Parts: sequence; structure tokens; C-alpha cells
Amino acid sequence: MHAHTALPYDQTAETEWSNIVLATPEVCRATLDSLMGRDAEKLASYFYQHMLGHPQARSFLTADAVQQRLHQSMTRWLRSIFHHPMDDAAGIVAHQRLVGEVHARIQLPVHLVSRGARLLKHHLRLALAQEFDDAQIRAQATAYAEGLIDLALELMSVSYERNSQREARTDEAYRLFAIGQNVGVERERQRAVLMEWANEVMVALHCKSAASLPPLRKSEFGMWFHHKAIAMFEGDMEVEQILDIIERIDNVVLPLLRPRDGARGAVERVSDLQDEIDNLKFLLSTLFERNLEAENGRDALTRLFSRRFLPSVVSREINVSQKRNTGFALILLDLDHFKQVNDTHGHEGGDLVLQQASALLLSSVRNGDFVFRYGGEELLVMLVEVTAESARRIAELIRSKFESTPFSLAQGHSVSVTASIGVAMFDGHPDHQYLIKRADAAMYEAKQSGRNRVVMAR
Amino acid sequence: MHAHTALPYDQTAETEWSNIVLATPEVCRATLDSLMGRDAEKLASYFYQHMLGHPQARSFLTADAVQQRLHQSMTRWLRSIFHHPMDDAAGIVAHQRLVGEVHARIQLPVHLVSRGARLLKHHLRLALAQEFDDAQIRAQATAYAEGLIDLALELMSVSYERNSQREARTDEAYRLFAIGQNVGVERERQRAVLMEWANEVMVALHCKSAASLPPLRKSEFGMWFHHKAIAMFEGDMEVEQILDIIERIDNVVLPLLRPRDGARGAVERVSDLQDEIDNLKFLLSTLFERNLEAENGRDALTRLFSRRFLPSVVSREINVSQKRNTGFALILLDLDHFKQVNDTHGHEGGDLVLQQASALLLSSVRNGDFVFRYGGEELLVMLVEVTAESARRIAELIRSKFESTPFSLAQGHSVSVTASIGVAMFDGHPDHQYLIKRADAAMYEAKQSGRNRVVMAR
Repeated sequence: MHAHTALPYDQTAETEWSNIVLATPEVCRATLDSLMGRDAEKLASYFYQHMLGHPQARSFLTADAVQQRLHQSMTRWLRSIFHHPMDDAAGIVAHQRLVGEVHARIQLPVHLVSRGARLLKHHLRLALAQEFDDAQIRAQATAYAEGLIDLALELMSVSYERNSQREARTDEAYRLFAIGQNVGVERERQRAVLMEWANEVMVALHCKSAASLPPLRKSEFGMWFHHKAIAMFEGDMEVEQILDIIERIDNVVLPLLRPRDGARGAVERVSDLQDEIDNLKFLLSTLFERNLEAENGRDALTRLFSRRFLPSVVSREINVSQKRNTGFALILLDLDHFKQVNDTHGHEGGDLVLQQASALLLSSVRNGDFVFRYGGEELLVMLVEVTAESARRIAELIRSKFESTPFSLAQGHSVSVTASIGVAMFDGHPDHQYLIKRADAAMYEAKQSGRNRVVMAR
Repeated sequence: MHAHTALPYDQTAETEWSNIVLATPEVCRATLDSLMGRDAEKLASYFYQHMLGHPQARSFLTADAVQQRLHQSMTRWLRSIFHHPMDDAAGIVAHQRLVGEVHARIQLPVHLVSRGARLLKHHLRLALAQEFDDAQIRAQATAYAEGLIDLALELMSVSYERNSQREARTDEAYRLFAIGQNVGVERERQRAVLMEWANEVMVALHCKSAASLPPLRKSEFGMWFHHKAIAMFEGDMEVEQILDIIERIDNVVLPLLRPRDGARGAVERVSDLQDEIDNLKFLLSTLFERNLEAENGRDALTRLFSRRFLPSVVSREINVSQKRNTGFALILLDLDHFKQVNDTHGHEGGDLVLQQASALLLSSVRNGDFVFRYGGEELLVMLVEVTAESARRIAELIRSKFESTPFSLAQGHSVSVTASIGVAMFDGHPDHQYLIKRADAAMYEAKQSGRNRVVMAR
């Protein structure tokens, strides 16, 4: 495949590349070419020294083999950019994109690459000051070197971002897939392998000849937790707690039960082990249960979308709206005096009202609209393909439905609940958070100015 | 919260910022400050003119309101960077991170920002050439301006990447959530609303007084498809086909049936409409079915993990391995002469062998290991926490199990199938693709050197 026949953007990049080169006097180009022939290795060494000073970068460079290999590719890269940069602009452009793909695979983020490039540019500036007496030429050579490096980084960044976003999505899909694989069965299975290990320890304790107790870390449970559960429950605080307990069992509890030096163990410490195992079981079941709930994306009480996916849904609608030039609106609705409902009729009463309010909203919108539970007594509707006029009309309709609908409570009682409503039309601002804030401010104004009313956001 | 008390990296950034400023003579700093006071608006205009020439950037800047607002923030940003840059380095650093977060929310990628910055730096270089006669000072001022801009971009990039990856993950979670909401019910429901619309059209056709036929685009089906299905089925080619059909129905088929100018429609064209509706139904059911299959992440025949999540799983293990200094291995296994099995015993025979081969592998590994169907007759095992020695031993064990196990076919027949096996130990190279390639090359060598053997990758 020829890079020539790719996207228009690539053509732009090649033209840009050529333009930078052509705008530079031959003497500058030749000097940089020979400078790189001589100094590229030294520059690559500076680069890695500098990167090793950065904690996140260091993790990419620990293995000697990697460091050596990357040092070589860095040297080659520096030379390739400045060696006959006009011969194959398309090839150079394509190569930068490839580098970006590799960076995405090894998760080397753009900002670390930029950081390294800043250092390179600094050293190049110093080196070029030595090369030229003429200040004008020196400035041109510097601009040339920095221009090519910046453009190369930009090209890497294009493919890095595309690929790293794709990989982030696949990672998330994998995580959800791993959780979704029949969680009930998985929970019981892992509890079972944990208990098998515990049983093994107890048997070994009774069998005086066994040299040492089997470490939890190396058990089936330990292996599962370190290599599979960590991915499933990424970001949950119980993960670290479980890792700590595993370490404590292996390094503190087991050695006390059966010291390695053959001394008599403190068998009365068996209850310590049982306590740790109980903690493990508790944390594990918390993890499984939380993830069962959180992943379903719906609010348990109202069955509306939970707030979690609101940014995704609104961002997507902003894109649709920009592309197709259709309007959309957010309607943020807060139940008036909801605290009184809870105080007078108990939380069960409040819950009943929320469920009926949600049903009322769902019945007021279309197949393409979205309804979220935004907060405690705040509900949010996204109306797609509406004008400000119809958004206001629909909001007003919702308000009057609330006003006229008695909400049923237990034992044949009922209660009136009005709603304060803020409406924000999408105004072209690409930040979803900004739009939500506008709806929120309008709703606040509706509250302040007496409740049970609709306010359009400015 | 004080930015001072944040991560070590921030302190580094603040120190870097201060170092760039302190290394620059006061005259350069003062000149840039007053240059920005005078020219920042002009520079911001150049910036947006340039960005409008880029197709992807243009989509962020269409709305006048946005362009005006961003122009203002760009002007402010330029001034803030060069105005007393030592007074509050921590504040400046924190602000750049905030800008990166906003860019992530509006999905303005780093490479577009860098592109704009390249242009800014170019214009600044020209402007500074006018300001200073002394070449030395001019070079220092240029290095200063570019240094601060580069560092600011790098800081934006840090928070951009973190946030945009998080958002990509949430988007994917939302997509899977949207698909997972009882697909069977959803499929029937959307087919029903499509048929409701078709029915409405037919009724309107018979009722001569109705002015025009209801467009599909604005029907419940059209709304659902444009605002919900597009997110669920992102990237599937049927989506574009369905969008085309909806457009064709509304713009070609319906106007022929009932022209807007009141002329008599070609009622005999009803069959065209039915054909398009049949196409829609077919594409829709293809979409639902493909997504049901693809999302489950398992190979339908062997119930092993499908290849889809291999990059996620291996990347993650690379991270674990680097962090905890444990080895892991990939075992890539190809069934020997599998084509003969298929030719002699039919595809059913081949399928049976693959299923038994998968079961054999699953029974040979531990709770923390992974088994994938890598290709047609290629299976891949990831062994966690192993040395090269034990990886070779396990591979050899698998090879000998294959050699000694007769694979059952229909009607009491059986067949012998051996395996060629390549084993690659993780060697510190952070690219998962590189590791897979090494396992692949070793497996190829096992094939070439006579099959039914284990080769360790170099």
C-alpha cells in the first residue's frame, strides 16, 4: 500500500514536511545531516538519561535489553529524519505513524515522548550554536531541526491516540467480559479454591513432617487473584486490601504457625489465620457484589439510566448535533420539598414518589430520548432533535403533569409533588459538562424564583 | 487544595517551568510579556485560521459562538503564560492540566493542539526577529518562548491522555451496556416500531387527504436508530447501509408515492417501499446477531477465549511481570497435518479434534493461566509466573499428551494428532506483538524441523 494514496491529512503532512525542508538553506540541512551522523548516539544517550529521571518513564526502561534496543532505534530515528529528508517524505511520514502505533502498544504516552523531545531540542540548540558563526543561518538551522522534530512527534501522536483509545476500549470490554462470565459461578468457584488452600494448610499443620506451609500467593486462589481478578476489579479499593492480606498471611501468619528454621510453631495462632481468611472472604464477596450492581448502568430504585453514562451519551449527542445540525436539549428536574415527603412519609414514601416520577418522565419522551437519575431527587432528560420552542413546551408539559398528578403512597394515601425544571439547549459549546452546568443553573433559578416552574438556560 | 502538595511529577513540572524562566534574561521575558499584551489576539486569529484549514479541527470550530469563546481563551492563555511566569508556577502548571481535561471532554486531540502550537511558535519566531537586533538575545528569547509553550503542551497532554482514556473506557462500557440490555427484547421492539411506521405510511396512502407521508427519519424507529443504535453498533458497516436506506426512503421512495406538489403518486411503487423495508429488517437482524456473538469474547466451537482480548491480556501480564519481576510465557501450538484430518474425516471430525485439543490444554494449565483459540488450528496458552525451565517442561508435557492421546471421532473411530509448539518467554520487551511474533517464529521452526516438537524462541 502506498502512503501516497492514504487520507488527505497524510498528504497535508507530507506537504508540510517538504515545505519545512524546502524553506531551509542547503547548508543547514547538510550540517544537521552530518551532525546527526556524528552525534545521534550521544543525543540518544542524553535522552535516556533524562527519561530515567522520570518515575513513569523509568518503568519502560528497566530491562537492559530494552534500553539497548530503544537506544538503537532512537539513534536511527534521529538520523533518518535529517538524512535526505526530501527523498521520501511519504515514507518518513508513514514511519512516524508506525512509531506512534508501537508507542500505543507499549503504552508509552505522548507526554513522555514530548518530554524527551524537549530535551533533544535543547541539546540540538546548543550543538548548532557551535556549528554556525552566522546568527541568521544558526537560527534557520535551529528552526529547521525543531520544525522537523515537532512535526514528527505530531504524526506519532495521531496514530498513538487512535490506537491507544482503541486499546483502552478493548481493555474495558475485556474487563466487563471477565466480570460478566457468570459472576455467580465465578464467585463460588474462587471461594472454593480459597477454602481448598485453607484446608491444605490445616492438613500440613497436622502432618509434622511437611517442611513448610503452602503459600497463598502460589495457590490457585493466589494465581487467579493476581492474574485475573485484578483486571476484573480494576480500581476497586478492596483489591489492594486483598493483596495486603495475601502478603500478610504468607509473610507473617504462616511463618508464625510453622517457622522455616524448624522451631515449634505457635499453633494457637490458627485463629489469626481464620480471621484473615474471613476478611478475605468478606472483601471478595463485596467486590463481586459491587461489580454486579455497578456494571448494569441502571439505577436500582428507578430503573432509569444511572449517572455513570451521562458524559458518554451527551458527548455523543453533541457530535451528532454538530454533524447533522440538529438541536437537542437537557431538561434537569428537581422534585420540590422532597425532604418533607421523606420526613412525613418515610423513605419508603420518598422511594415510591421517585419511582412514579420516573415513570411519568419515561411516558413523556420518545424512543430516541434518554432519562437519567441524576442525583437523589434530580432527574435528567435528554431530548434529541428538538427546537428550543418544543423543548420548552415539553418541559412545561412535564411540569403540569407533576402538578396535576397525585403520587400514590402506601395504604391509599397520596401526595402532591411539584418540580422545578431547568432547560438548556445545546448552544454549540463542545463541552458536555458546560451544557449540564447550564441546565443546573437554570434549575437553580427555577427553585430560587418560587419552584414549580420552568426556566430556560441562557 | 494546593497544587504544591500534589504528585512528585507536578513538582518536577514546576521546577522545570521555573528553570526555563530563570535561565532567561529579564529583557527577553519583559519583551515577550509586552509582545503578548500587544499581539496575543492577532496570534490567536492566526491560530484559528490555520486550524480551520484542517478537516478534523474544523469540526470543533464551526459554531461562531465557540470560535469567539475559544479565541478569547487562546488570547488569555498566551498572555497568562508570559505574564510574570515566576509569580505562581504552581498555578500555571495546574491550569495547563485543567486545559488538558477540557480538551479531553471536547475530544480535541493532542496532535491538533500541537499543530496549532507549531504555527504559534513559527509566528513568534518571526515576531521576535523584529524585536531584537542582538542575535544572541533573540535566540534566547525564542528558546524561552518555545520552551514554555512546549512544556505547557506537555502538561495538557498528561491530563488529556488520562481523561480521554477514561472516557474511551466509559464509552465502551456504555456501548456494551446498551447492547447487553436484553438484546432479544430490543430487537423485537425495534422491528415492531419499524412496522408501525410502515403501517402508518400505508394508511396515509389510502387516505387521500393526508398531505404527505410520514418520514422514516422522524419516526420512533428513525429516532432510535440515529440516537441509540449508532452507539450500540459503532463501527459495523450495516450502520451506514441502514442510514442510506432511511435517507433513500425519505428522499426518493416516499416522494414518488406521494409527491409534495399534490400530483398523483405512483402507487404501483409500493413494492419498492416493501423491498427497502425488507432490506432494513435484514440488516437490522444481522447487526443484532453479530453483536450478540462478538461481544461474548469466546470462540463458539472450543469455548476458549477468542483472539480478540489477547492484546489486552498479554499487555496486562507484561505490566504485572515488570512490576513484580515474575516471568511468563506464551505457548503457541499448531495441530500437525490438520488439513488431512479435515479431508479424511470431514469438518465435523476436525471440529471434534479441536474441541478435545482445547479440553486437553485447559486440563494442563492452572487457574491463573489463559488459553486462547489463536487461529484455525492454532491454540495459544499464556502461562503466568513460570521460569523458562518450567515453561519448556509444561510445553513438553502438552506435546507428549497430544502424541499419546487418541482423539475420538464419530462412530467409535479415533485419530492421532500431534502438535508443533513454539514457546516464548517474556524478555522485557514491552510490545505484546513482538512477544507473540517470537512465539510464532518458534512454532514455525518446530514445524519446519519435523513437527511434533517444542522449540524455545530466541
